[in-house]
Amino acid sequence: MIRHLLSGADLDAATATLILDTAAEMATVAGREVKKLPALRGRTVVNLFYEDSTRTRISFEAAAKRLSADVINFSAKGSSVTKGESLKDTALTLQAMGADAVVVRHPASGAPHRLADWVDGSVVNAGDGTHEHPTQALLDAYTMRARLGRLAGLHVAVVGDVLHSRVARSNVLLLSTLGAKVTLVGPPTLIPVDIAQALAPGIDVSYDLDAVLPNVDVVMMLRVQRERMTDSYFPSAREYARRYGLDAPRMRRLPEHAIVMHPGPMNRGMEITPEVADSPRSTIVEQVANGVSVRMAVLYLLLGGNNL
Amino acid sequence: MIRHLLSGADLDAATATLILDTAAEMATVAGREVKKLPALRGRTVVNLFYEDSTRTRISFEAAAKRLSADVINFSAKGSSVTKGESLKDTALTLQAMGADAVVVRHPASGAPHRLADWVDGSVVNAGDGTHEHPTQALLDAYTMRARLGRLAGLHVAVVGDVLHSRVARSNVLLLSTLGAKVTLVGPPTLIPVDIAQALAPGIDVSYDLDAVLPNVDVVMMLRVQRERMTDSYFPSAREYARRYGLDAPRMRRLPEHAIVMHPGPMNRGMEITPEVADSPRSTIVEQVANGVSVRMAVLYLLLGGNNL
Amino acid sequence: MIRHLLSGADLDAATATLILDTAAEMATVAGREVKKLPALRGRTVVNLFYEDSTRTRISFEAAAKRLSADVINFSAKGSSVTKGESLKDTALTLQAMGADAVVVRHPASGAPHRLADWVDGSVVNAGDGTHEHPTQALLDAYTMRARLGRLAGLHVAVVGDVLHSRVARSNVLLLSTLGAKVTLVGPPTLIPVDIAQALAPGIDVSYDLDAVLPNVDVVMMLRVQRERMTDSYFPSAREYARRYGLDAPRMRRLPEHAIVMHPGPMNRGMEITPEVADSPRSTIVEQVANGVSVRMAVLYLLLGGNNL
Repeated sequence: MIRHLLSGADLDAATATLILDTAAEMATVAGREVKKLPALRGRTVVNLFYEDSTRTRISFEAAAKRLSADVINFSAKGSSVTKGESLKDTALTLQAMGADAVVVRHPASGAPHRLADWVDGSVVNAGDGTHEHPTQALLDAYTMRARLGRLAGLHVAVVGDVLHSRVARSNVLLLSTLGAKVTLVGPPTLIPVDIAQALAPGIDVSYDLDAVLPNVDVVMMLRVQRERMTDSYFPSAREYARRYGLDAPRMRRLPEHAIVMHPGPMNRGMEITPEVADSPRSTIVEQVANGVSVRMAVLYLLLGGNNL
Repeated sequence: MIRHLLSGADLDAATATLILDTAAEMATVAGREVKKLPALRGRTVVNLFYEDSTRTRISFEAAAKRLSADVINFSAKGSSVTKGESLKDTALTLQAMGADAVVVRHPASGAPHRLADWVDGSVVNAGDGTHEHPTQALLDAYTMRARLGRLAGLHVAVVGDVLHSRVARSNVLLLSTLGAKVTLVGPPTLIPVDIAQALAPGIDVSYDLDAVLPNVDVVMMLRVQRERMTDSYFPSAREYARRYGLDAPRMRRLPEHAIVMHPGPMNRGMEITPEVADSPRSTIVEQVANGVSVRMAVLYLLLGGNNL
Repeated sequence: MIRHLLSGADLDAATATLILDTAAEMATVAGREVKKLPALRGRTVVNLFYEDSTRTRISFEAAAKRLSADVINFSAKGSSVTKGESLKDTALTLQAMGADAVVVRHPASGAPHRLADWVDGSVVNAGDGTHEHPTQALLDAYTMRARLGRLAGLHVAVVGDVLHSRVARSNVLLLSTLGAKVTLVGPPTLIPVDIAQALAPGIDVSYDLDAVLPNVDVVMMLRVQRERMTDSYFPSAREYARRYGLDAPRMRRLPEHAIVMHPGPMNRGMEITPEVADSPRSTIVEQVANGVSVRMAVLYLLLGGNNL
């Protein structure tokens, strides 16, 4: 097993499948009467968040607590940490305090990698800048496999601001490893061809969502970051919703069995309409639930927990 | 047993009495050597707070932890949640993460009711706008019963800004159910007669605190919200304290056995003087302690905990 | 055993030694497979922080959780508590909620002492203004003893803004009790002689770091508070670093066996250079680890925990 989870590229097919299988086991156990497992009793998981992300923090916190770990939340935003203490000194401090795992969200791409150089414990990347968010990719893969029965051979459209999306990046890496085919869809300014090719050589890119939909098993809508919409390379909100938003007529272009995914939180009416978000094809709520199971599996496997 | 606790009106006399009796049992057990009960082990309680309220949040947190539940604090203020995610999506997210109960504080009256439509777990209203705060009413009733031996037939004066007080509203509803008589006391602009009658038909209203005091068993002082004191319908601070503040001479108008209550935090010198707040008649500190027992009882009963 | 830990002066030599010995035992136990001890199961520790101090809060939180206590974090900054509720009312509230120990950080010197007058539980001073920080002094003493084998007879230089340093004050008091000799070093404006003498009559003061270094076993660098550097009694940053910063050439003036301490977080390049901070003489990371053990010991002894 790997020691850290920093990137979708860290996972070979066997390791990724082990995580997904373990997550499925976690989901089964957690569905029983007693939801709490003693596997990580006595271990300490620190949530080190340099950005607000209540959803991701809570998901990791719930996962760690169900495994009986102690959880310490460390919101670095506005703390003395951001007043000049280096990431390295923070890392050494957490390590000295006995953190067995550090779950880190950071605005700078690559920060979790640097952290991993300095600590003996495990580092889990919970989102670093525009770079990666590997547990999101794992929970997405888990959801696809649970709904569609397999990953190999699936065709997945990832739609939106690919350029700035750590979710897209981690998904492309992991899905390629697991044998799925990805097509990136969005405005040309948000999917530079050279970046797409650097990410996954030979990956398909399309600027025409309607043309892609009939051929996919999964359409994954990316969240529009409203603060980015004023950038010059971004179309107007109205134009974006019209061309790349998923509404009911567009959803009907999908094959019968295809599913609709979104990492949340949604901008209802922008990248996805309420009708689509709440339809039976939508896996959005399942993704959240699967996120807890997948994070339980990741923490369990990284920390070499006791028997389940 | 009910599934949610949203309003004082949700509670019939039998259910309210069951909660108070269970709270008394909790207080007994928690007074013993080992204060921690395994009743909610493996359950997750989420404190979803859209407003700061450290006291209420801590009280619920202490209650849940004494029952061995896992507690996740979700301060929605300033998080991405308030940046556009709907309350519904937040509710579905918490549910998917496995929240067995959501304790919600929200500035909008009625928000907990809407939340309850969307989740399978239990919702506890920890204060919604100017609307309700039912666990406060329960802890107040518990305190009156503990001090005075009964609730039926008691005469309770609720004094202050009744118009904006969720504490007053929940108390009126619950006390009526439990057979106590309530008189609302305050400046005419803060107790509109139509609102008082809509709340509890036939309820007594008085603008003269001195006249009411000799006839009551309980005087419950409401907190003055300083940010409301600039409103045009509010008397000046000095005028308010002079006419409706409880000081020592006024306290002496009460019958020998009568008690003084306040939900906290107090503005000492405004609605209550330090001499009154710290007198043996004051139940203010007991109310805090009883709050933990009552919230233990509510969580225990709503979640159908294991044997005590 | 004492009931509160408010000041380094509360500790006689026997009590301080008991804490250090207990901390050593905690460190041994916590190094084993199962890190969690049941000693404080069912007890509640409240972290009441009126100032941000993530490091100190986390250290106490980790300590309490390893002893199986429930921890409630109460950040009073920006809460209703700071909007007018008195410290006394907050204290009574926490007590009523069943806090067995209150760990308090407050900007006002003496606030923990006042708190201790009002609660039945134990109060631990986690830093009050420019006054004291006794667990920091204990972890520093622990670290010296662990590295150098003894405390009695050691010569310790405390270097920096002694005037405003609670770390300096608590260390001077505790080290004197334990038989170590302290020399205060810093700019004359930051070590007024009358204050130094009031703290510890006969204590040595020097304004010349280079002259002191060859004669000490320990050099303890104080953190420079950048917000204080604009004060008129403060030298310029450049002048301060040049005269009182610890760099490699200066470190070489120390005896072979001497160690370098810093309470963290460091301003690398100001009071200490990276080369010194990361050298084998530096105990900075050990201090953090020892902080958890010492705080475990303090909470355990104050709360009269069950057998280890």
